Amino acid sequence: MTVAVELIINQLKQVLLEEQVSTNETVRQLHGKDESHHAMSLPDIVVFPRSTADVSAILKVAHAHRVPVVPFGVGSSLEGNAIPIANGISIDFSEMNAILEVRPEDLLVKVQPGVTRSQLNKELKKHGLQFTVDPGADATLGGMAATNASGTTAVRYGVMRDQVRDLEVVLADGSVIHTGNLAAKSSSGYHLNGLFVGSEGTLGCFTELTLKVYGIPEFVTAGRAVFNTVGDAVSSVTALLQTGISVGRVELVDEASIQQANIYNDTVFSDKPTLFLEFHGNEAGMHADIAFATEIFEDFHCLSVEFEHDNAGRNKLWEARHSLAYAYMHAHPGKKLMSTDVCVPISMLAETILYAREQLNTVGLAGGIVGHVGDGNFHALLMLNPDDAEEQAKADRFNEHIVQYALLRGGTCTGEHGVGIGKMRYQATEHGSSLAVMKSIKIALDPLNIMNPGKIFSL
Amino acid sequence: MTVAVELIINQLKQVLLEEQVSTNETVRQLHGKDESHHAMSLPDIVVFPRSTADVSAILKVAHAHRVPVVPFGVGSSLEGNAIPIANGISIDFSEMNAILEVRPEDLLVKVQPGVTRSQLNKELKKHGLQFTVDPGADATLGGMAATNASGTTAVRYGVMRDQVRDLEVVLADGSVIHTGNLAAKSSSGYHLNGLFVGSEGTLGCFTELTLKVYGIPEFVTAGRAVFNTVGDAVSSVTALLQTGISVGRVELVDEASIQQANIYNDTVFSDKPTLFLEFHGNEAGMHADIAFATEIFEDFHCLSVEFEHDNAGRNKLWEARHSLAYAYMHAHPGKKLMSTDVCVPISMLAETILYAREQLNTVGLAGGIVGHVGDGNFHALLMLNPDDAEEQAKADRFNEHIVQYALLRGGTCTGEHGVGIGKMRYQATEHGSSLAVMKSIKIALDPLNIMNPGKIFSL
Repeated sequence: MTVAVELIINQLKQVLLEEQVSTNETVRQLHGKDESHHAMSLPDIVVFPRSTADVSAILKVAHAHRVPVVPFGVGSSLEGNAIPIANGISIDFSEMNAILEVRPEDLLVKVQPGVTRSQLNKELKKHGLQFTVDPGADATLGGMAATNASGTTAVRYGVMRDQVRDLEVVLADGSVIHTGNLAAKSSSGYHLNGLFVGSEGTLGCFTELTLKVYGIPEFVTAGRAVFNTVGDAVSSVTALLQTGISVGRVELVDEASIQQANIYNDTVFSDKPTLFLEFHGNEAGMHADIAFATEIFEDFHCLSVEFEHDNAGRNKLWEARHSLAYAYMHAHPGKKLMSTDVCVPISMLAETILYAREQLNTVGLAGGIVGHVGDGNFHALLMLNPDDAEEQAKADRFNEHIVQYALLRGGTCTGEHGVGIGKMRYQATEHGSSLAVMKSIKIALDPLNIMNPGKIFSL
Repeated sequence: MTVAVELIINQLKQVLLEEQVSTNETVRQLHGKDESHHAMSLPDIVVFPRSTADVSAILKVAHAHRVPVVPFGVGSSLEGNAIPIANGISIDFSEMNAILEVRPEDLLVKVQPGVTRSQLNKELKKHGLQFTVDPGADATLGGMAATNASGTTAVRYGVMRDQVRDLEVVLADGSVIHTGNLAAKSSSGYHLNGLFVGSEGTLGCFTELTLKVYGIPEFVTAGRAVFNTVGDAVSSVTALLQTGISVGRVELVDEASIQQANIYNDTVFSDKPTLFLEFHGNEAGMHADIAFATEIFEDFHCLSVEFEHDNAGRNKLWEARHSLAYAYMHAHPGKKLMSTDVCVPISMLAETILYAREQLNTVGLAGGIVGHVGDGNFHALLMLNPDDAEEQAKADRFNEHIVQYALLRGGTCTGEHGVGIGKMRYQATEHGSSLAVMKSIKIALDPLNIMNPGKIFSL
């Protein structure tokens, strides 16, 4: 431990309790990685704030000494977003996990950043309400806002950015701002909510979030539509979306991924390209939507459509979909997960997925494709041996090909995982001259570059 | 005309055609006002670009000479947003009015900023599509993006910011950026779409917009629900929203406003507080929604509910709602319109509207209240004699009271009209320390402060 680090620890212990500051090796290791294949890098110090005032005090110390600061939720990020690559202080928000206020009449909830998605939904259920963003992992809401997470329900309810009504943010110098208000819409001043959501800790630390919630729909039905080819499955979704039918979820799981799901979950789903579906609404309207959707699937040579009308069947179906990343990890012990994350205009989705499948076969890595096909976002899940440089290089080349393919078609290199470390190399190509605008905003708000430095872009 | 202005005109004529540069007094007067009560202020020069290259060339000249630049659509803004209060150059986008591309499969359209809402919808209808943001006025899409306009359909489809997938923007120095891409979602880099939408020309000029469009719903029914009191009408909407029923539009028109509408449109609507409604969807679902909504209205002592099942009846109903501002203007020749625009959390809406009505009575000005009650946004429409300082002072006090009432309840001073000149005085109270963040972004992107200077906030 260097003298500088010792000095900072002493200063932190003056503003926090002894037990809120850790340099324990195991604790540092837990904060040096996420769920991705990216290399571990340890923070020098891990702190556990219990209030906005704590976070502000931590930032003031860091700012005075120009020490890097990285916010940390549960470490479920997939692009190294929370890895402290420049060391410094990891701020763990697990002790700021209170649900501060539920406002059923306003369909709003105010939470601290360490609250997890499932914790929030458990509380909301008492009020007949739900929080709709569902990235699979039981991430914290602070982390989900930082990466603009989304997942299976974005096709109906939108992404994390669409749910954020207000953030309390501690800026690099320790000052505290609010980015919004409680009104459903506003044309007052610049849209700071949108700017801070997805900024991956590079502009400030979130200490409170006010989020939109929704009534639990009267009727929900989930189902599976099985197709002969991925092309047919995706094309049927494009046709479905154009009709304006309100789909709750629509997910593609390819052949290889169905096989993994069956092994991991002990299910017996037919191992063909499958759409996992959900419809919501009033009973009459939902049945009309399902009947219309079934007709469209049949136009695309669907082999079977089956719906689950009870909760147990529905939960089993979505559990199989959501555990897919873990199913792959389980089947490949010792290997690490790499997930591509491009999102393309819907009209380009079928050809992009076919291209990805073809490239996956060519490169010869184990993996499958799953996707939020209603949004044009899909993931190729690859399992890598982290010590095999050749395998890593192959996977990087594969990722590169998919990203370039997507960018040429008006897409983005990351639909929901964020840039972190893994997508930095594509930022110049994707954003062109607007990258300079982003950098000028970063410099204006964090001139010392202490907030999660070296993420999204280099200055 | 000063020597400096002549120099600039000469430089502009070197990069544009003679006919694209005007100093004609009438032309300048047309660009020195909007539809609000705010005082006229003339630009020195009006230019009519025909391409992004033209706009870039204009900005380069303005930048070199530190001349203020104000973008201008059709002048339908309501807070002086497009009035060149520091004179300089007004950029009129009426000659950049091409619909560049319709992508039905992607539910996207690319337009130039001078395209109006009705022009776009006429074209989209051929494809069975619609653009959903409807502020009443036939504004340009560039102007609507600049103020983050919304209107009657926001409760279902969201506001202007929710529709913008990408903007081409010319920055203060004449450089050109894109703020987004064609994908339905992205977690790549900072969210510049959201930042530029609502920036009211203070960060750059929009030269192309890529916007979301929607399929025209299978069934649409409009109707009116008449109540004894404004309180009952608004409370019924709060109850309706909580059920999660998907309402297409829900507008409050108070007694005074119904009277104006009847005179102006030759309608015979009962002069009681009324909700104007629209429901969309498949036939079965829509009828179930309407039946459920009717039950809720009856719980709140609704006097009558009537639905229009044909296009003509529906159009007549919405025409009456949309022409209300003009109805007030028509009834008060020589007077000018002032419209409040607060938006509050839904739970606070009934009491805020009642407070506004009470204040309107107290202050003794002619006016009525209409509102996008599904969003918590409403307008008190006042008619002012612009030469009567006392009347103006009364109206300003009234506006001030409503805004302070809304801000104390977590609301915003402007739900959809933008800040312009009229809401600048409330920015510090509303945004607190985040106002400094907004200013630092403005300074980073427009250090010479030539982009619509003196709007939103003073530097």
